[in-house]
Amino acid sequence: LQAEIVTIGTELLLGEILDTNSAWIAQRLMTIGLNLFYTTTVGDNMPRMTQVLRQALERSEVVITTGGLGPTVDDMTRDAVAAATHRDLYLDEDLVREIAAYFGRRGFTMTDNNKVQARIPRGARIIHNPVGTAPCFAVEFEGRVIISLPGVPHEMRHLMETEVLPYLRAHFGLTNVIKSRTIRTCGIGESAVGAQIEDLMGLSNPTVGTRAHPGQTDLKITAKAESEAAAMALIAPIEADLRRRLGDFIFGVDEQTLSGVVARLLAERGQTLATVETTTRGELANQLAEAGLKVEALLGGVTVASEAGLAPALGLAPADVTAWGFPSQALADAAAQAVRARLGADYGLAVIGPFDPAKPDAPPVYFSLATPQGLVQGESRQGRAGPSGRGWLIHLASDMVRRQLLG
Amino acid sequence: LQAEIVTIGTELLLGEILDTNSAWIAQRLMTIGLNLFYTTTVGDNMPRMTQVLRQALERSEVVITTGGLGPTVDDMTRDAVAAATHRDLYLDEDLVREIAAYFGRRGFTMTDNNKVQARIPRGARIIHNPVGTAPCFAVEFEGRVIISLPGVPHEMRHLMETEVLPYLRAHFGLTNVIKSRTIRTCGIGESAVGAQIEDLMGLSNPTVGTRAHPGQTDLKITAKAESEAAAMALIAPIEADLRRRLGDFIFGVDEQTLSGVVARLLAERGQTLATVETTTRGELANQLAEAGLKVEALLGGVTVASEAGLAPALGLAPADVTAWGFPSQALADAAAQAVRARLGADYGLAVIGPFDPAKPDAPPVYFSLATPQGLVQGESRQGRAGPSGRGWLIHLASDMVRRQLLG
Repeated sequence: LQAEIVTIGTELLLGEILDTNSAWIAQRLMTIGLNLFYTTTVGDNMPRMTQVLRQALERSEVVITTGGLGPTVDDMTRDAVAAATHRDLYLDEDLVREIAAYFGRRGFTMTDNNKVQARIPRGARIIHNPVGTAPCFAVEFEGRVIISLPGVPHEMRHLMETEVLPYLRAHFGLTNVIKSRTIRTCGIGESAVGAQIEDLMGLSNPTVGTRAHPGQTDLKITAKAESEAAAMALIAPIEADLRRRLGDFIFGVDEQTLSGVVARLLAERGQTLATVETTTRGELANQLAEAGLKVEALLGGVTVASEAGLAPALGLAPADVTAWGFPSQALADAAAQAVRARLGADYGLAVIGPFDPAKPDAPPVYFSLATPQGLVQGESRQGRAGPSGRGWLIHLASDMVRRQLLG
Repeated sequence: LQAEIVTIGTELLLGEILDTNSAWIAQRLMTIGLNLFYTTTVGDNMPRMTQVLRQALERSEVVITTGGLGPTVDDMTRDAVAAATHRDLYLDEDLVREIAAYFGRRGFTMTDNNKVQARIPRGARIIHNPVGTAPCFAVEFEGRVIISLPGVPHEMRHLMETEVLPYLRAHFGLTNVIKSRTIRTCGIGESAVGAQIEDLMGLSNPTVGTRAHPGQTDLKITAKAESEAAAMALIAPIEADLRRRLGDFIFGVDEQTLSGVVARLLAERGQTLATVETTTRGELANQLAEAGLKVEALLGGVTVASEAGLAPALGLAPADVTAWGFPSQALADAAAQAVRARLGADYGLAVIGPFDPAKPDAPPVYFSLATPQGLVQGESRQGRAGPSGRGWLIHLASDMVRRQLLG
């Protein structure tokens, strides 16, 4: 079975909006054993949309469209699907009432424009949309199926999970389930991980693959079986084996993030963390704050955006800062201790380095973690620019806290 | 003239990498008057790649491919282009030497694998790649042209700018230039902007369109002319007109950001800003710090990730914080004054509100700007979740500083 996605919208084609839906849909289709073969983006133009949909239906059994279901004249997915499947549109009065009710619940009145959204290709299976105004639909046509979903990511995702995936499984009798488990590591590079698991990378079911991110290497175990439980049973022994081989380089699985793990460990211990950072520009505090929203574990962070700001932000003596030098291990240590004391936290974490670490001859970035037992120090000379460089530093710093909390 | 893009790579199709190249290429093609009609993504599979390229050459005069030019067996763009244009590949010995030299300059030895990259469809025009190992090429075929570029963004961009755009202009005799100017506003909604410029939105050359972002409305003026200067001459009077109508709602143009404008205004005045924030989780400090890297204007920011962290982070008396209530205007005022005093800044900016502003019945977010002349206050009840909600708050807060600095 072959699936393809058609994303519709001139704003997508011209790059004014970045398409994140296709990637997500591809991943979800894989879990029911449907492989994606093509993604096509086409602008809001009836003849071109229709031609793309016709071609998609010629080569693929499952076609999923996103976008073009809104109430404006630019929204022509309904018309193009009807044209590509040789039928007309009708106004579904039940859907009109449903849309009016959706507006009513939010204290708005439905305009005539919005009625357009209740026009449905004749014979289509209606997919009700409880999270937005655009009703969706599936048209079965010559043994194939074309499903039209809204472009708004949270609406599309909700409908895929609750309606489209169950429908596709039932319609095509898809009995295979593909499950993945992602094991996340830090403090070890992709080639070092690869060397330790080379034999496992030759397996065929489950498969094991690696993927490197800044400061993090993921291992993905993927199994195909007739049920979710059977797939998980294939995955479990491989996961156990990986855990034996990689030990505490593993910080989490699946959707877990290193910041989230640090926040959870702090919350479990009833402890708190305060941060101070230069090179990472507040992104360390931002990631920890986001992770910490669910657990009351973090007090706060100080972002220092210029060398001159360091002493006043932390209550350090300017003469001391000058004597230690910027950046330096001594300054990082003092900053970690100062932010720990100032915010009354159990741990103070400092990432003190150049504002532009990618400049030639830039000094290193110094890490210091002030704990009730003393200081843990670190240093990075990787000198990468941009978000990926900062991602590295944030991972190194967060991993210091994780290892400290785990003892 | 019709252009289309074919992006090649299973990792793109499956969403393991997000395609940012297509959007950029679309924008650049527009500047020479070439309109993009389709983007197709296809995996690393010879028959499917070839079929997609054949179809692209049937419907478009210009086809640009990205990806699949590397040295591995998965890299089949060379083969697919040759097959789609009915020719074979030959090993270009000059290119082999060029690739060997590229490796040599970096202290590496070329492997046999890399020689594959010097295989070129017979009769193709070679596009030398000084910034990577993958040579690129253009094949002219039945009045059409297919150009294959690497997927690595910085290589692709360099080759587009220096080779591909000049080649396309010359090859198709494209004399028109399309230039755009984006006028950026804040503090005024898209519909209010629309109402003020309705007459201009009917123009045909230049055209004027609006686009809403969280807390920001952009106006884009686009002109087509025979030279860049002529296009700019069409744009100038419209820009002047927009400036008359929208006054100080306009904060910048083109690539300028509100954070960047605030940082520049501070630097021009030799003044400094310190921030303290809850709801925005450090993103305000992060944006200002990023903008402030080029101008020494910002001292730093304090991110508070829990209610309990507020008093110690700012040196406020816990009893006072309790008396004011969290959040409240009085607390925001005290926080702004405290962060201003603590960091010795000219301005202290506080954004104090609930950690989850989208919860039903969430209290408002309070803003306070402590200046040498006293306090400026603000409040937002928009209650949006996620990055877009935080984007709104950051824009509102930054615009308070901008308006204060402009008097």
